[in-house]
Amino acid sequence: MRRWNGWGDEANDMPLPEHGQQFVAERIGAGQHLPDASLAQVLEQVPASRLVAHPLVVLDAEDRVRHARGQSLPDWLAVREGRFGVFPDGVAYPQSAEDIRALLAYAQEHDVIVIPYGGGTSVAGHINPDESAKPVLTVSLERMTQLTDLDTESQLATFGPGVNGPQVEAQLRAKGYTLGHFPQSWELSTLGGWVASRSSGQQSLRYGRIEQLFAGGTLETFAGPLEIPTIPASSAGPDLREVVLGSEGRFGIISEVKVRVTPLAEQENFYAVFLPSWQQALGAIRALTQAKVPLSMLRLSNAIETETQLALAGHPAEIGLLEKYLKLRGAGEGKCMLMFGLTGNRTQNAASYKQVKRLCKPYRGVFTGTILGRKWAEKRFRLPYLRETLWQAGYVVDTLETATDWCNVDSLLNKIETSLRDALKDEGERVHVFTHLSHVYGQGSSIYTSYVYRPGGDYATALARWKKLKYATSELIVRNRGTISHQHGVGADHAPYLPIEKGPLGIATLKALAKHFDPEQRLNPGKLLQD
Amino acid sequence: MRRWNGWGDEANDMPLPEHGQQFVAERIGAGQHLPDASLAQVLEQVPASRLVAHPLVVLDAEDRVRHARGQSLPDWLAVREGRFGVFPDGVAYPQSAEDIRALLAYAQEHDVIVIPYGGGTSVAGHINPDESAKPVLTVSLERMTQLTDLDTESQLATFGPGVNGPQVEAQLRAKGYTLGHFPQSWELSTLGGWVASRSSGQQSLRYGRIEQLFAGGTLETFAGPLEIPTIPASSAGPDLREVVLGSEGRFGIISEVKVRVTPLAEQENFYAVFLPSWQQALGAIRALTQAKVPLSMLRLSNAIETETQLALAGHPAEIGLLEKYLKLRGAGEGKCMLMFGLTGNRTQNAASYKQVKRLCKPYRGVFTGTILGRKWAEKRFRLPYLRETLWQAGYVVDTLETATDWCNVDSLLNKIETSLRDALKDEGERVHVFTHLSHVYGQGSSIYTSYVYRPGGDYATALARWKKLKYATSELIVRNRGTISHQHGVGADHAPYLPIEKGPLGIATLKALAKHFDPEQRLNPGKLLQD
Repeated sequence: MRRWNGWGDEANDMPLPEHGQQFVAERIGAGQHLPDASLAQVLEQVPASRLVAHPLVVLDAEDRVRHARGQSLPDWLAVREGRFGVFPDGVAYPQSAEDIRALLAYAQEHDVIVIPYGGGTSVAGHINPDESAKPVLTVSLERMTQLTDLDTESQLATFGPGVNGPQVEAQLRAKGYTLGHFPQSWELSTLGGWVASRSSGQQSLRYGRIEQLFAGGTLETFAGPLEIPTIPASSAGPDLREVVLGSEGRFGIISEVKVRVTPLAEQENFYAVFLPSWQQALGAIRALTQAKVPLSMLRLSNAIETETQLALAGHPAEIGLLEKYLKLRGAGEGKCMLMFGLTGNRTQNAASYKQVKRLCKPYRGVFTGTILGRKWAEKRFRLPYLRETLWQAGYVVDTLETATDWCNVDSLLNKIETSLRDALKDEGERVHVFTHLSHVYGQGSSIYTSYVYRPGGDYATALARWKKLKYATSELIVRNRGTISHQHGVGADHAPYLPIEKGPLGIATLKALAKHFDPEQRLNPGKLLQD
Repeated sequence: MRRWNGWGDEANDMPLPEHGQQFVAERIGAGQHLPDASLAQVLEQVPASRLVAHPLVVLDAEDRVRHARGQSLPDWLAVREGRFGVFPDGVAYPQSAEDIRALLAYAQEHDVIVIPYGGGTSVAGHINPDESAKPVLTVSLERMTQLTDLDTESQLATFGPGVNGPQVEAQLRAKGYTLGHFPQSWELSTLGGWVASRSSGQQSLRYGRIEQLFAGGTLETFAGPLEIPTIPASSAGPDLREVVLGSEGRFGIISEVKVRVTPLAEQENFYAVFLPSWQQALGAIRALTQAKVPLSMLRLSNAIETETQLALAGHPAEIGLLEKYLKLRGAGEGKCMLMFGLTGNRTQNAASYKQVKRLCKPYRGVFTGTILGRKWAEKRFRLPYLRETLWQAGYVVDTLETATDWCNVDSLLNKIETSLRDALKDEGERVHVFTHLSHVYGQGSSIYTSYVYRPGGDYATALARWKKLKYATSELIVRNRGTISHQHGVGADHAPYLPIEKGPLGIATLKALAKHFDPEQRLNPGKLLQD
């Protein structure tokens, strides 16, 4: 059963080794546990629905609670405290494009706001209803999960939009294929959501971002269906796929997605290399990327993240041995872990491995084989469960991410870390901050920063601290040539910063598109664009 | 000096070996030479300009003649006959973004139509003025050709929009870099034109299409400048780069382009492999592409193109020897030539070569080394000169291109070739038709078909024949899941077919964008969108 007030399935967790908890306490102080509300308490708050009955619309209170919030930190705090504020007036579960069109017609007829809902994994407030004079209908696509066509010659698969990561891969693997799209939210997030929010997976280096995987499909809009044919590449005017990608439910509801798939690879391994310093590590990852070595993943942790990961890994004896070995080979304090993936046929992988060795040599990389990589691969989708674990231990964890050109990566990363580390100084609070680069391009890299802080004595303090951390750092990112989001989208939380990135005419262009597809502005108001 | 009535520089040509001319004559009959008009005759027709004087605007007749037409077949016939019909009322040569903004203000003030002009190489009527009650100003960007910045860390270069292929490469090569964008029009076409028309180069397999190379820049519009920052990848809403790409002068004038560049490769070679049949060749090229072997080019000629190329190559004795050898190895009549490029470091290239060998084996590929590849590379930008040569010999040559999914490539290619081959049957005329695939993707391929026909006794017949050939086949392409253009853009000639590809809401979306950026519809009317 999926947790109503946290990440993932109740049967799963990500335990913190005792040493790990101590590690955090040493850095920012003892944990401060806040009391959780129960589902029963929340259900009592759900007001009567304002929606007119419709066969596809469910008005049940628990459905409305379970679709009211995503996974942003404010969502987390609201849900744990049991202060939801606003609930959708109902949830619809369409099973076809016709159902979606019927729901849009219903919304138009009865003056209803519509929020498309995929896996509910947004960390930027994409699916939260706002206070509104009009009733709000959340349209969950969870019943549209079928692989309806697989063209093996063109390597194209057609899916319903609500299919989640495991469902995508299970259906493709049965036929020898993979989509290769593995965001950290993969267990719950959906194909339609990935497209709507321009998602990027951990192996985008091989498979591409969702922009490269999305070949076509249909967006149901208030102006009619936008049907995008699958064409491998075209110079026939602006690419309309790009209007669907990143539309975040503002332009329409995706009813069908066609994606480019790949036959399962002969071989896949993840390796860990340690670089003696951050500057050497940066040099190595840039060299590997710009040499276009056909790798499937590159992920570089800075020194604090490397230290944190090794501390939280458990097995302190084994890790101690590893660190001794690394020190002997020149990677002691300040070392940075670089993980790389090789996916493909054996000939190609062997050639790529040789190149990685050669390109890392000037930066004094110490290779440690596949053990750490295997552990990473096993736990790659478990990290979101850590928020629950840390919460139980009395800590709050959140992340911030961006991307920028290589010439700006180091500078922006330092600014972000400093901004977060110092944000609660006035309260005498420390923040534990660490960073990795996990999506790299010839031109630049993503920057993904995690931060752990103490909630204080109550929920109001926890949220106030988050706002201090988030707002100043978001402003800093867009003022310093970073994107407000490399992989999480805009939603409500990032919308105030988008105008700096897109410029006045850019924002006006997106508004013109929203108006074009949704003249009465019923779709997901306040998300992506503030008005 | 650039030819005023044909392709390229007057000093260059592409002679046809005698055997080659005979080859064409055998297939479609003796050539029919039509008389050419002189520049003096054309200059006499240029009417008085309707433009109000402006320091940036030149009203000289020869400037107006030289910017009146592109390189489509109807353009060719109009220019050779000396019947231009419409000339722009003047040509402006801005040297900066400020100049461009001044020209837009001038156009607004004096109710002027504006046509942005790059290299004038459009084969789809992009830059032709239409009959209009308003004066028409062509804005040529040929004075904005500088490399103004090279960020070697982020591998980003900033150029003026009017820089042509040789100017791009010369400026980058001096610093050890390449853009790697080599369309056949490279000698004359410009970076701004590539972006505006979504161009694709011969080595897009390694470097990407212009969509992948274009990192940001500025579009000057009637609604203000659209400034797109360079960010390596982003999930912050729809990507506005994609609004500039393919905008074909309808939304604004590109004043600056930032592109992703690559250090010059250690090694580059092009190889020719012959496959015994088209079906085997198709199997091989698809296998190579879908295995993601890091090649820099794949180009497959069908049997008739292979035969035609070998016939037109000259050196009949050497070619005869080659054909004997190929026959001995199993590639006789019906053989197809597959060219592939390896660009990169030696280790990578060696590994890729090994993979090509392995993957071509089941299809019985016969490898012939780098001789033909070297010849191709030497002449790669000379092919457009062949139109002049064939014209002098009394023949008309044009090309048609599209892209479609792999499951449809063979079927659509056959339909296109049949449509062209039979188009003039009612007149008892034969058409020589041949095809290659030159841009391949996991999902599908481009299809590039050339056709040679006889002009008949006069220009009217030559044009009427072209219309028969072009119109029916264009309609067929979009009715059969092909794009109306993979690499030439829409312009005027393809605009009637775009609605079938984009759908009614898609076309309405592009119109909404045109209206948004250019409320009075002054920019390049009739191109991309018919109204």
